Amino acid sequence: MSYSSVSALTAVAPGQFNATVDPGWTIGGKPNGGYLLALLGKAAETAGDHPHVIAASAHYLSSPDPGEVAIDVEVLRAGRTASQLRARLAQGDKVCVEALVTTSTLGDSEPDWSAGVPDAPTAPFEECIRLSSESPTGLTIAIMDEVDLRLDKATLGFGRGRPSGSGALRGWLELPGEDFDPSALLYAVDAFPPGTLEVALTGWVPTLELTVYVRALPAPGPVRILQQARMIDAGRVDEACFVWDSTGRLVAQGTQLAGIRLPG
Amino acid sequence: MSYSSVSALTAVAPGQFNATVDPGWTIGGKPNGGYLLALLGKAAETAGDHPHVIAASAHYLSSPDPGEVAIDVEVLRAGRTASQLRARLAQGDKVCVEALVTTSTLGDSEPDWSAGVPDAPTAPFEECIRLSSESPTGLTIAIMDEVDLRLDKATLGFGRGRPSGSGALRGWLELPGEDFDPSALLYAVDAFPPGTLEVALTGWVPTLELTVYVRALPAPGPVRILQQARMIDAGRVDEACFVWDSTGRLVAQGTQLAGIRLPG
Repeated sequence: MSYSSVSALTAVAPGQFNATVDPGWTIGGKPNGGYLLALLGKAAETAGDHPHVIAASAHYLSSPDPGEVAIDVEVLRAGRTASQLRARLAQGDKVCVEALVTTSTLGDSEPDWSAGVPDAPTAPFEECIRLSSESPTGLTIAIMDEVDLRLDKATLGFGRGRPSGSGALRGWLELPGEDFDPSALLYAVDAFPPGTLEVALTGWVPTLELTVYVRALPAPGPVRILQQARMIDAGRVDEACFVWDSTGRLVAQGTQLAGIRLPG
Repeated sequence: MSYSSVSALTAVAPGQFNATVDPGWTIGGKPNGGYLLALLGKAAETAGDHPHVIAASAHYLSSPDPGEVAIDVEVLRAGRTASQLRARLAQGDKVCVEALVTTSTLGDSEPDWSAGVPDAPTAPFEECIRLSSESPTGLTIAIMDEVDLRLDKATLGFGRGRPSGSGALRGWLELPGEDFDPSALLYAVDAFPPGTLEVALTGWVPTLELTVYVRALPAPGPVRILQQARMIDAGRVDEACFVWDSTGRLVAQGTQLAGIRLPG
């Protein structure tokens, strides 16, 4: 089985890139929002003066179909230690995603203080349950055949039709044949199913806004993830996401606002 | 005493506005980042087809000085129930803040589910301690004379030189002579001092990225706020913020990545 890279780009001119939205990276035929942001983050890292995305904020305008897309990046400010860039992903004449990206240089030292980060005890990788592309809501989650995404049995109530009510999912994510880098972490924060599954069964939960902070270079190996739904109202939910590398270092954090569609 | 509105704008052409960055809304002479985002949110609400900002993400390029600024808004997508806009704040030929804004129509009904929101027991408004414009770090926080910002005594360890180590501040915020509206909530999520004060004394904590979700129309009266620092490393901190209206309804949530400058 061959896997496509989470953020493969072809540079066609300064600040301009082509990419292919892979049908494998979709949910119900629509590409994952974090996967699209990973493409924009990689483009910003390539177009700017600093090697690593440290903050990225995307607003989703319309979902591209699998196939060719164009990405353009504009440097808004090139600083000594950090730069800000605007990145846009378009298909034909339709802009699909616009994002603001701040790039800098990340290290891998330990945090100075992290007492504000939630605790998320998670069973070891081997004891978690790998999700398949057939979901309990009937959507085809093709992306589950591209990655190895495993949930702790304690947060799999939805799989037995009995959500715990916590709104939280814990588990692991591995990219077969590829280690995480900062731009791939932009995908990791949107990789998990919505925490709303542990509240009540829902259908497609399209991302409206996604913000990610990358805090350190991840060690090789799978990442551990906590996905937490916080509040559901007016057909929308916000979710927080925390991503730790294989050494237990918090490497990325995300927050998103998403729509909730009823199961179909 | 007269107060200046949190988001006063003058329309000069379609999608173009002038505003004055008020010296009163500054910290050590630099305007508050949430105050600038409130200006951009109000401009987006005015320029677009939907009345309320529901999501705003700003990257901060350079700090404007108090004085005249120009704001321009471009509609990226005008949808039936929501629109996405790009808003920029510039001073002279220097772009200071660029933001992406999604607008829609908010209501004030109760949430359907909110078990993922942290609990933040806070003393009543009258029992909290109002902050003054003289800070323990020596910075002049002029903005504290514009607003009524009060902290729960339990989170004021830093004021006695003994931070609790929690990284959390709880309290209340009132805009004298003005109720909160959705764009004013963009200021509320950045109004509190940094939660880092309850870790160790710091100097200026400039916002690099700020994302806000507005979830409902706020009731009149002061808002209750939880500001929580999560992780400090490499000279940066991320903070989460939750804002409840006077009826106890969660109305806004924010997350920011900020730099940390040493005191002095």
